[in-house]
Amino acid sequence: MSRGKKLYEGKAKILYEGPEPGTLVAHFKDDATAFNNKKRATLEGKGVLNNRISEFIMTQLNSIGVPTHFIRRLNMREQLVREVEIVPLEVVVRNVAAGSIAKRLGLEEGEALPRSIVEFYYKNDALEDPMVSEEHITAFNWATTQDIDDMLAMSLRVNDFMSGLFAGAGIRLVDFKLEYGRVYDQNDMPRLILADEISPDSCRLWDIETNEKMDKDRFRRDLGNVTEAYAEVARRLGIMKENGPSEANEAK
Amino acid sequence: MSRGKKLYEGKAKILYEGPEPGTLVAHFKDDATAFNNKKRATLEGKGVLNNRISEFIMTQLNSIGVPTHFIRRLNMREQLVREVEIVPLEVVVRNVAAGSIAKRLGLEEGEALPRSIVEFYYKNDALEDPMVSEEHITAFNWATTQDIDDMLAMSLRVNDFMSGLFAGAGIRLVDFKLEYGRVYDQNDMPRLILADEISPDSCRLWDIETNEKMDKDRFRRDLGNVTEAYAEVARRLGIMKENGPSEANEAK
Repeated sequence: MSRGKKLYEGKAKILYEGPEPGTLVAHFKDDATAFNNKKRATLEGKGVLNNRISEFIMTQLNSIGVPTHFIRRLNMREQLVREVEIVPLEVVVRNVAAGSIAKRLGLEEGEALPRSIVEFYYKNDALEDPMVSEEHITAFNWATTQDIDDMLAMSLRVNDFMSGLFAGAGIRLVDFKLEYGRVYDQNDMPRLILADEISPDSCRLWDIETNEKMDKDRFRRDLGNVTEAYAEVARRLGIMKENGPSEANEAK
Repeated sequence: MSRGKKLYEGKAKILYEGPEPGTLVAHFKDDATAFNNKKRATLEGKGVLNNRISEFIMTQLNSIGVPTHFIRRLNMREQLVREVEIVPLEVVVRNVAAGSIAKRLGLEEGEALPRSIVEFYYKNDALEDPMVSEEHITAFNWATTQDIDDMLAMSLRVNDFMSGLFAGAGIRLVDFKLEYGRVYDQNDMPRLILADEISPDSCRLWDIETNEKMDKDRFRRDLGNVTEAYAEVARRLGIMKENGPSEANEAK
């Protein structure tokens, strides 16, 4: 199975034409960026870890009935996914105050939120991904009211599932970012499915005992041992053996 | 009718105890502030104008069935209003891109929005009134989902009415800010009513022909003739005669 021509290169991934119409090959890079591209680095092995972690989570989401773009992992750095029309929104689900919500609403980092909160951000680097509300989303036709309801419902299911998954691994799911894409059925009816990736690049994950950060904040805040923390997440989820990617899981 | 003790002093108004339980006296000051209090000035006559303009609009809103806190004007600077539990939100209705939405979403000032957009901001000076969405509002219990629906519906009615009112006066209603408060009926059931003021301090008003600003942006942007512009708004609405407050309207 060979990938086709390069379609898009983002900060952490490259998308290639897939082997069949309606498919893409997602290639996970080792590049890390933060603060809207102002901070950059290469973190050796990050792409391999995120490919594996995202595969692991997306596979399980598919199995509980949350539709995702994930089809199968192809190799250490690549996975086959469905081609989607991306919705230009980042959907953030928060369980604990951290990052921008702590600053915006004057909350202490680590403070539990009264309930899980779903936020929408408009994907636009030039505008630094501004937070938007349902009113902006529908007025500018980035998504319909039905789409928003679907994204809210799916995102809360993903939150429930992932909160459980990580709790079982001794990790607190503080918050995470999702992206959705639109696919069309035989009758040309649109449907939203989960796209992009789910990994320590897109989640805040804290050790449940020590509150140690096991996610991209280690990079943002220069805490060191970034890929070591990602590997620890993979290890605790049972994806990798002590000393690297598990050969058993490798055979697909 | 005498006012009671001072209960609260804000940037542009002072609230005193009213003559009867459940009432307040709102006193309109000449003070102007902008940019979260960083810019201040005294604009002689502004309070008188805003008291009159707000009376004029609130009276008409009451008459079309939009409930407001306004009871009656008492004198040049004061009006009698119902005491409410203020909802800690600023509700902004926008018809044309200007101010923060232009910056946030990369729109040209003056660009028509695809449709009217309602935004919510959390009233908190220390946080500089951050924009929030329904999710934050309900999670932190600033208002219920029903309250939000009621505020959306009432705000759009106010927008329709005021768009017509100002269009008839040769003025484009670009955007405006509303505040709501909660009152309780005999059975202790809460209900939201419009509170605060509606004036050139809380609206963006552009001359429909020249796009000249007739609102607080004249102060924010040092365009000069601030109270002259407010007086022109009052004159066009038929509130004031050419040379000052109309005696006819004064008799209440």
